[in-house]
Amino acid sequence: MITGILETALYVNDLDAAEHFYGNILGLEQYSRLGDRSVFFRVGAGMLLLFNAEITAKIESYINGDLIPVHGSVGAGHVAFTVAEAELVTMQAALETAGVEIESVVTWPNGAKSVYFRDPAGNSLEIASGKLWGIDIYD
Amino acid sequence: MITGILETALYVNDLDAAEHFYGNILGLEQYSRLGDRSVFFRVGAGMLLLFNAEITAKIESYINGDLIPVHGSVGAGHVAFTVAEAELVTMQAALETAGVEIESVVTWPNGAKSVYFRDPAGNSLEIASGKLWGIDIYD
Repeated sequence: MITGILETALYVNDLDAAEHFYGNILGLEQYSRLGDRSVFFRVGAGMLLLFNAEITAKIESYINGDLIPVHGSVGAGHVAFTVAEAELVTMQAALETAGVEIESVVTWPNGAKSVYFRDPAGNSLEIASGKLWGIDIYD
Repeated sequence: MITGILETALYVNDLDAAEHFYGNILGLEQYSRLGDRSVFFRVGAGMLLLFNAEITAKIESYINGDLIPVHGSVGAGHVAFTVAEAELVTMQAALETAGVEIESVVTWPNGAKSVYFRDPAGNSLEIASGKLWGIDIYD
């Protein structure tokens, strides 16, 4: 019955830095920000949720009396974003122009390429095309 | 240039338990397993990557000499899966039948519902429809 991933979460220590990085440098569409707790972005048919782990892991919250379960992790998480194969080089150049250090560029056995970099909190980010996994709908 | 999220990662401590839970109980389509390091599932137009954090956070690996950056976190991560609104109740019942404890059911201000539970590693999982975020393509 599961048809996709609706929410992907990463944890950061500086929400202002995350808002700037994901919104202005990666160009994601901001959906909402909740104080120092979270900033949410719409990405295609899903959401990227960035949480201040110190807050979200400790404070239970409720909606109409229903518990929103706590979560939150420490250490580098990982997310890959889909970019059309033909635009990978352009996006890598845009990241470099914006001062983002490219940690690695990997060419996989099937010919797909991944470009790796970090967000300000140290999470491992990647841009790649669906070709990496044989997912063709994006290219 | 980013059109979607291609890879979502969670970290677990028992890869066999994760493989059983995500494959047999949640019914995700397994893509690959790499020893005690990782098990990957295809979910819609993306991939869910489950890593043994102790291994993936410490061991650098290379593809044709190119570094695959390390990552790995400790603590509960979070992923929400997309399920059609009409099938949420059915899926909740299937989870309960399979012995999965439902941690909370939340009705959001816009009427969307979220069903929360945990994977064997303690990650916070959620099933909800795209209605939660005004994403209509699934329903």
